[in-house]
Amino acid sequence: MNSMHETTEFDLQSRLPVARTPEQVRKKVAEARAKGHIIGFVPTMGALHAGHLSLIEHAKRRDAFVVVSIYVNPTQFAPHEDLSSYPRPFADDHRKCADAGVDLVFAPTDETMYPPGDETRVQPGALATGLCGPHRPGHFEGVCTVVARLFNLVAPDFACFGQKDAQQALIIKRMVTDLQYPIEIVVCPTLREPDGLALSSRNAYLSADERTRALCLYRALSAGRESLLTGNAAERAATVMHETIAQPAPPDAIDYLVAVDATNLQPVTEASRRVLLAGAIRIGKTRLIDNLLVDLPPQRT
Amino acid sequence: MNSMHETTEFDLQSRLPVARTPEQVRKKVAEARAKGHIIGFVPTMGALHAGHLSLIEHAKRRDAFVVVSIYVNPTQFAPHEDLSSYPRPFADDHRKCADAGVDLVFAPTDETMYPPGDETRVQPGALATGLCGPHRPGHFEGVCTVVARLFNLVAPDFACFGQKDAQQALIIKRMVTDLQYPIEIVVCPTLREPDGLALSSRNAYLSADERTRALCLYRALSAGRESLLTGNAAERAATVMHETIAQPAPPDAIDYLVAVDATNLQPVTEASRRVLLAGAIRIGKTRLIDNLLVDLPPQRT
Repeated sequence: MNSMHETTEFDLQSRLPVARTPEQVRKKVAEARAKGHIIGFVPTMGALHAGHLSLIEHAKRRDAFVVVSIYVNPTQFAPHEDLSSYPRPFADDHRKCADAGVDLVFAPTDETMYPPGDETRVQPGALATGLCGPHRPGHFEGVCTVVARLFNLVAPDFACFGQKDAQQALIIKRMVTDLQYPIEIVVCPTLREPDGLALSSRNAYLSADERTRALCLYRALSAGRESLLTGNAAERAATVMHETIAQPAPPDAIDYLVAVDATNLQPVTEASRRVLLAGAIRIGKTRLIDNLLVDLPPQRT
Repeated sequence: MNSMHETTEFDLQSRLPVARTPEQVRKKVAEARAKGHIIGFVPTMGALHAGHLSLIEHAKRRDAFVVVSIYVNPTQFAPHEDLSSYPRPFADDHRKCADAGVDLVFAPTDETMYPPGDETRVQPGALATGLCGPHRPGHFEGVCTVVARLFNLVAPDFACFGQKDAQQALIIKRMVTDLQYPIEIVVCPTLREPDGLALSSRNAYLSADERTRALCLYRALSAGRESLLTGNAAERAATVMHETIAQPAPPDAIDYLVAVDATNLQPVTEASRRVLLAGAIRIGKTRLIDNLLVDLPPQRT
């Protein structure tokens, strides 16, 4: 952690202020509201890449006062996961936010997000039981819990999430509907490298060889999409994805690689109109996820 | 249910308007805010008695725009409990609110509180594991879930709860701290009948004989308080309460009758400064709860 991240002083002198406490973020947001701004929010764990910046750009296009939170949330990491090694390049992130025209960085302390004695949790339901759910115990509860808190602290009019985390986006939308948050959830498209690899902060973990092998997931998803678009059933598309990812060099593990109904993450049925092709794989020690949304052709037989 | 409760029309003509939907309640609250009012909130399940009215009075004394919600929340009733028979005298409640100077009644539809497909829950932690917790499975999760939703819908500056539901009040305070709701939780004293029986909507269930027998809980709690104030330890006070409640006529069942640390509901220790004497009993088919807070004398040996 660098010194900027450790300071508890509200950096009002900077071109881009950093709020650390509830009082600080609420004061800045209230001032922006008093000036007639709507509030746009982009929650992140930092290690910002072009995918995050595209969320910020979306918020800027709406003429919002844009708040970006940077907080590596411990409760969404399982004990065996990469919490301690997760990248925290705060100075770089702050500069990227400033360059992107962000109005306020919210880098809360652990004490803000998890007050002493904390024990309240926000629990998602069935949407969290499949895909990443079984492979990351507690992950989506951690996500819901921290996002609910961030929503209560920032009180935005809208918040931007990436389609790359498709299951997370669905769960957050469900939470907002269920808990009656007056917040519009905007899901922005996945950004990719020129060869198709989805942008991810975890790509930084990959060696050159792993980087090459990582592309197998996107290739498999693309083959599944092709299969669906040529009229095949979801089961066939899933088989095609598994065949494609197995050659020439399979990943070190496949957590899942599936074709599900994009609205509820359940098996595709006659009624399904949009399919989510989604996968999670391991390349070396790195876990990567990706997905594609496919609107089914209207006339299937 | 009476016809007033069934209408979905926003009753703007009435002396006291009734909001039924998120849009209606948010519009009214926003109008009040625009006029410079702070917002006070009293969440209830209706069947209003003088205890509820004392919460409303408290909010009025703060010069707030007072919103009272009336909603019998299904998720806080266990399957075997009295959800279907719980009293719903909406017209009476509305009149009482009007007479008390309430500014807005929020009587949400089930679809507002539990949208189709709803599956998100707010889970309390250790505070919910003792006292009523084991006897009412899911109760406090239901309470937290509905109160979080009401808070998101009403967005009050402060909300009033009764000390009568001591465990609920502690859990809601904990939730507000943990989830960072910008809402002050005000806990108002228990109101009692002249003989000491705590006011409760469930008292209406009691026959004349049961009403007489119901007083045993308050008598036991009072004896426990006396014991503590004369310097006895919490264990002794608990024994005194059990001895007192057993005669002359014990209740039909005792769910619990305990002396715990008032801050965490755990066993009283050397460090405890305030004790919660709390009990839950059954009189016939009616479950009654009550409690007393006792500040321990400063010099104990």
